[in-house]
Amino acid sequence: MGLKASLVVLSLLLALALASASASAKQDPELKQCRHQCKVQQQFSEEQQRQCEQRCEDYYLQKQERKREEGREEEKGGGDDRKQLKECQKQCERRQQKGRSREGCQQRCVEAYGRKGEDQPRKRRGKEDQEKERGKEWVNDRYEEEEEEEGGESEGREESDNPYVFDREHFKAIVETEHGRVSVLPKFTKRSKLLRGIENFRLALLEAEPNTFEVPSHWDTDAVLFIVEGRGTITLVRQNKRHSINIEEGDIVRVEAGTPVYMINRDQNQKLIIAELLRPVNLPGQFEAFYGTGGQNPESFYTAFSWEVLEAALKTDRNKLERLFGQQQQGAIVKASREQIEALSGHEEGGRWPFGGGESHGSKGSRSFNLFNKHPSHANQHGQLYIADRDDFKELEDMDVMISFANITQGSMIGPYYNSRATKISFVTEGEGYLEMACPHLSSSRSKHSRHHQQQGGGGGQTYQKVRAQLRRGTAFIVPAGHPVAAIASKNSNLQIACFEVNAENNVRYPLAGKRNIIDLMEREAKELAFNFPSRDVDRIFKSQDEEFFFAGPEEWQEQERGYADE
Amino acid sequence: MGLKASLVVLSLLLALALASASASAKQDPELKQCRHQCKVQQQFSEEQQRQCEQRCEDYYLQKQERKREEGREEEKGGGDDRKQLKECQKQCERRQQKGRSREGCQQRCVEAYGRKGEDQPRKRRGKEDQEKERGKEWVNDRYEEEEEEEGGESEGREESDNPYVFDREHFKAIVETEHGRVSVLPKFTKRSKLLRGIENFRLALLEAEPNTFEVPSHWDTDAVLFIVEGRGTITLVRQNKRHSINIEEGDIVRVEAGTPVYMINRDQNQKLIIAELLRPVNLPGQFEAFYGTGGQNPESFYTAFSWEVLEAALKTDRNKLERLFGQQQQGAIVKASREQIEALSGHEEGGRWPFGGGESHGSKGSRSFNLFNKHPSHANQHGQLYIADRDDFKELEDMDVMISFANITQGSMIGPYYNSRATKISFVTEGEGYLEMACPHLSSSRSKHSRHHQQQGGGGGQTYQKVRAQLRRGTAFIVPAGHPVAAIASKNSNLQIACFEVNAENNVRYPLAGKRNIIDLMEREAKELAFNFPSRDVDRIFKSQDEEFFFAGPEEWQEQERGYADE
Amino acid sequence: MGLKASLVVLSLLLALALASASASAKQDPELKQCRHQCKVQQQFSEEQQRQCEQRCEDYYLQKQERKREEGREEEKGGGDDRKQLKECQKQCERRQQKGRSREGCQQRCVEAYGRKGEDQPRKRRGKEDQEKERGKEWVNDRYEEEEEEEGGESEGREESDNPYVFDREHFKAIVETEHGRVSVLPKFTKRSKLLRGIENFRLALLEAEPNTFEVPSHWDTDAVLFIVEGRGTITLVRQNKRHSINIEEGDIVRVEAGTPVYMINRDQNQKLIIAELLRPVNLPGQFEAFYGTGGQNPESFYTAFSWEVLEAALKTDRNKLERLFGQQQQGAIVKASREQIEALSGHEEGGRWPFGGGESHGSKGSRSFNLFNKHPSHANQHGQLYIADRDDFKELEDMDVMISFANITQGSMIGPYYNSRATKISFVTEGEGYLEMACPHLSSSRSKHSRHHQQQGGGGGQTYQKVRAQLRRGTAFIVPAGHPVAAIASKNSNLQIACFEVNAENNVRYPLAGKRNIIDLMEREAKELAFNFPSRDVDRIFKSQDEEFFFAGPEEWQEQERGYADE
Repeated sequence: MGLKASLVVLSLLLALALASASASAKQDPELKQCRHQCKVQQQFSEEQQRQCEQRCEDYYLQKQERKREEGREEEKGGGDDRKQLKECQKQCERRQQKGRSREGCQQRCVEAYGRKGEDQPRKRRGKEDQEKERGKEWVNDRYEEEEEEEGGESEGREESDNPYVFDREHFKAIVETEHGRVSVLPKFTKRSKLLRGIENFRLALLEAEPNTFEVPSHWDTDAVLFIVEGRGTITLVRQNKRHSINIEEGDIVRVEAGTPVYMINRDQNQKLIIAELLRPVNLPGQFEAFYGTGGQNPESFYTAFSWEVLEAALKTDRNKLERLFGQQQQGAIVKASREQIEALSGHEEGGRWPFGGGESHGSKGSRSFNLFNKHPSHANQHGQLYIADRDDFKELEDMDVMISFANITQGSMIGPYYNSRATKISFVTEGEGYLEMACPHLSSSRSKHSRHHQQQGGGGGQTYQKVRAQLRRGTAFIVPAGHPVAAIASKNSNLQIACFEVNAENNVRYPLAGKRNIIDLMEREAKELAFNFPSRDVDRIFKSQDEEFFFAGPEEWQEQERGYADE
Repeated sequence: MGLKASLVVLSLLLALALASASASAKQDPELKQCRHQCKVQQQFSEEQQRQCEQRCEDYYLQKQERKREEGREEEKGGGDDRKQLKECQKQCERRQQKGRSREGCQQRCVEAYGRKGEDQPRKRRGKEDQEKERGKEWVNDRYEEEEEEEGGESEGREESDNPYVFDREHFKAIVETEHGRVSVLPKFTKRSKLLRGIENFRLALLEAEPNTFEVPSHWDTDAVLFIVEGRGTITLVRQNKRHSINIEEGDIVRVEAGTPVYMINRDQNQKLIIAELLRPVNLPGQFEAFYGTGGQNPESFYTAFSWEVLEAALKTDRNKLERLFGQQQQGAIVKASREQIEALSGHEEGGRWPFGGGESHGSKGSRSFNLFNKHPSHANQHGQLYIADRDDFKELEDMDVMISFANITQGSMIGPYYNSRATKISFVTEGEGYLEMACPHLSSSRSKHSRHHQQQGGGGGQTYQKVRAQLRRGTAFIVPAGHPVAAIASKNSNLQIACFEVNAENNVRYPLAGKRNIIDLMEREAKELAFNFPSRDVDRIFKSQDEEFFFAGPEEWQEQERGYADE
Repeated sequence: MGLKASLVVLSLLLALALASASASAKQDPELKQCRHQCKVQQQFSEEQQRQCEQRCEDYYLQKQERKREEGREEEKGGGDDRKQLKECQKQCERRQQKGRSREGCQQRCVEAYGRKGEDQPRKRRGKEDQEKERGKEWVNDRYEEEEEEEGGESEGREESDNPYVFDREHFKAIVETEHGRVSVLPKFTKRSKLLRGIENFRLALLEAEPNTFEVPSHWDTDAVLFIVEGRGTITLVRQNKRHSINIEEGDIVRVEAGTPVYMINRDQNQKLIIAELLRPVNLPGQFEAFYGTGGQNPESFYTAFSWEVLEAALKTDRNKLERLFGQQQQGAIVKASREQIEALSGHEEGGRWPFGGGESHGSKGSRSFNLFNKHPSHANQHGQLYIADRDDFKELEDMDVMISFANITQGSMIGPYYNSRATKISFVTEGEGYLEMACPHLSSSRSKHSRHHQQQGGGGGQTYQKVRAQLRRGTAFIVPAGHPVAAIASKNSNLQIACFEVNAENNVRYPLAGKRNIIDLMEREAKELAFNFPSRDVDRIFKSQDEEFFFAGPEEWQEQERGYADE
């Protein structure tokens, strides 16, 4: 059964998993649909079809089993939950003090710790939908996608027209167990030649269930990690020393290529979610994971050596080695006991590592930095922007990366502005909204859609395509250097965006509206000549907005939202 | 009508423009020829032919009209001209004191300010030719080229045989109005795989008519500007500040990617000509211009945003915005009044910018540097070489670029020599001459032309192809690292070459003749063994020439020139 | 006759040369075989076959002639040999004091200076084989290879399956005379896309016969030279100065792109063998040699200029120039007299160059460094590892290269271990052995060979292909970053490996067995969870080996060797 076939089955299983997670008793429709999908896959042989259907059934039974077990666990864990919920809500309050929205935070606390709070429920969504959402997060919900495609063939068009935006289904799993998942966007150049300026970078996502352990591995890629959500401990082995770092929302960790690393999600209820920017060292834009520990799954690289070599190197009998390297079959993310979690957590009293230590948001030395420790570089009632660069965290220097986080108040917007030389690789961590970007590259290929371009009399010859996209939790998008961009939060929730900005050195953010916008800085005569318009009238327009960077959003956006749906 | 067809028409129109500029009354032949070219274009449909002819006529009429107007303007501006001419000639004298040829300079003064001086006219050229030359500069004179092709199919061969030399027609216009033009060489790798070492660089040319304004824009490319000719002011917006720099011949200006920039040609008569080395930041060897101001032409990138977003960002009614962004229709280079020019010029008394200030050749701080302020690194009666590197102008460091300017006396030559690691991207700013370069890459593909290679007995296996080219104002050429090269000025005029040298750090120039040539530095025994020749005889040859770098050119060159024509 | 045909003939001739070198009187079998090979070449036309056979005969006759002459010379040079042998043996002893094996060294002395010593002869080899070996070194013994191919088609498979290992026949000659040879591995990306991380690097080998001169040239590539064997003098011309450096085994020399360089092998009996890492400056992974001196062979680049230009530049009559540039016809490596060698050797009393001077192993200033001057970074009875990085020899910095040399005692092994970010470009300088490497890249393409991968239950998804190869003098191999690797010396001889490690900055070597291995550094709970096995049992295994880095090799390796042969 080829790789492609496996992926299809995997997708179907996932779809089934998601569906089954939300449904309660009569699962038949989903199972039926899974089987149906097996049948209509044209590339399948009869034998493959049979296997596919068998898997549908197996998975369904497993899922049922687990569901029952989870039900029991939840009952047991109730007392603990209440304590955790309280702590979680306390954190939200601290967060609010730093100017960030409390709402999404509180809601996540409730979602994670199972008690409905007083928070306003998300609009236009039934309870069932919410539960579905909670189960899948950024999971590869290809199943749903395929239905959409049948209806509107929308994806195909978006694919070619807008190479800058990636939805959740673009993240492909490279590690997947029932306890967690590592997924990654495809090589940017596979998407579009327009992204070859960042072809050496990859964007990955780790999601680990509560109380789990990600087994040790090293990767042939440099990495910068941004903790999106949750509380964990990451352990790095550098130069004969072990460093354990407690991580939480907003932390930035640098992992050098080849470093053995493992992690726990030490929270009992909340997921650990980490966005990772990768820069492979062996092959441009391509990387591999190397598991040393492990056995059959993950396979240990030790077992690629001859037994004779291993026996000599480890001075151990082959039988013992075969036993050792045969035990692990649970995959790369496994469940851990509370005792194990406790033991693997970094400790306040810093036994292991000088900068170790509990929950403190402070600077922990050279290996991690919390973005929210800094004052926001821009802040008003419409939003806050946090930035960490090489001056804040020296370990960002050699990858030439900067990290930013924008919290856009509901109904507000950021921009338009542009970066002078950095390219933004962005990731929506919370909320919903819209993106607009002006792109000269797309305009030629899509000229049929664009407004008519006046060629007569010569001229700049440049036209700009409007790139538009809906943003929601899990959407990733790219903004190349020089491209004017704006993001608008929906009326219902704050929009929070984490960005890795590559090619960061000497980057300048140029505002195109509001205080100190670039037009405003020009001489009277330059404005006059440039706009072919009285400079007084130009000034009236470019001086009207007196906020900076974050503004109140459009009034009639409701209408606009429909526009996006059509797009 | 496709792009290709448009380009052909554009070329024809330009040819017509040039022709009409030189002719006085009976333009019929040119118009006829333009129409004829429309007919013989095989790729044209009948409809396209008709449009082509229509454009010939329209353009011809417009040109006539403008000609009449210019005639009136010239009459008015006469008094001013005399003053300007005097100033121009004074500058030439200062320049002469720095060891550079006064002749071309004086001639250009006269050409620009309209009075015939006492300068020796260029040989072998009628008055009509000179006027034609004056009108076209590096303009895309494809028309002429195509005629040549018919006669001798020379271009096709040169294209494949010699990828290192670019003639004027290789520069393609990306901005073109009646007041100026920005043109750029195609991506080097489109020309030849042999140039992929410099594929991230581009060479561009700005030519602006007197009293013009280039509207504000930012580009997704780093740039180094070398002012070839004229007097202007360039304004950069960096980090909330505006910097106006007066520029003139020999000035070097660094413009960082993303910086909003605009310029004026503040001279009333002389063109402003700037050579630009670009290194794009988003896509290797590819860049885009972003016009914020402007309207329909150049299109403003503001208009790529939804009106709702613009209204909110600029706090301004849609109607007003539509009016603002609809006015500019004249293109990216527009005419400015004397008052506007005056206001946009940098002022000696430094109101705007600490290092601003008039015409001074001195160091102006960190954003520009005049190449002719330094003593030449080599100078004798046969020529002078000026060099500016990162030590002279720190802003050249991050692009790893060096700038040099060679003024080769008429009938003299520079080299042979080679650069140890820098690749030269050169541009002829004045005069005529010849280039010779030894190239090992071409020799295999062109082995039929090369001298027979003695394979017997084994050996280096390396042969060298002679790369030859005629050089004239507007020719660009590439000299890769390690490649021995020589350039010879014609007997009639100094040959002046500006070079951007990339990969400049630790570069060494190795002379292959004259004082301190590399052969001369070897031990007696090394010469003996290397040449298989008595070392005394080797010495006699490599010690004969006692000049350094610049030498008297070949005597029998007249004959040689014919040789080039055949090539 | 095409290039391919020429190569085949060349190979046959070389094979013949090698064969004839060992035989004494009745050469008929070799000549016969050469002719036979001519006949079975399917790509040959009849005419080509005839030429091929003619060349076999011509070469055979020449070889006979030279053999006779050499016989006479050897008789004359006998007295000198004895002195040289003594000196050579003295050097071996000094070397032994530095913890390196004396055996191979002594044997090489004997081989070079012609008297059989008391050293143990290599096992499983007749005297005839040894003599054959002595003649060919890494020479392109395609002849032998082709025979193998007939038998087992093994090469074709290895080619595609294992792109990391290069045998002697992969080095292609770019310079070849009867006195020496420069050969180079093809561009790594020609071998496999998996090597495109090092596509800008090339690996070359210089082999020069005793008393020879490599004529001056400059190359458009940066280079790091590692002297594998012999004693020479290298002369560099930098910035109007000449620097002569005496070189010997273990010396590292940096040659900047474009530097005119020439060399002698100043030993009267021993070959000079140099491994070179090249990083071209003009074109990625592609370089050219530029010979200035020379004439018809090597061709001088001077002759690519017009005679008129040369006459003017050198102020010399064309007749004289034609005579000068017509004499050298012997190729790029020529024989030199003792007097010439003497004159071209660097002298202790430093007339020429402050750091010049005899045989001293010490630091010679900034242009060379001897690797064996440093204490080994790891050493025990199983082997020694020497490392030189930018801290030892600053000139390695800009190429970001580190050089290492491993001497693995016979029957011992190095590793398994991995490099965190450096890629090793390795070269076996002595001995025989085996390589094992775990590679995730190959596993997917070669999945049919790999062990079954447990997909059920999800997981890392990663499998590792065992890359295995036999190593012998002249084998080159690549180890990418992160890839676990081990090398095992045969029971019969030490295995010595020189490595250029690129991407060296901040590289860390992680041991996977023995003291301080990465598993050992993990917490008890991490081991437990990772292996799904009691941590006490994990510890027992990973703490058994108490050596570091070098270990006793496998016991039952004999069997294993057969395994390799099958592979």
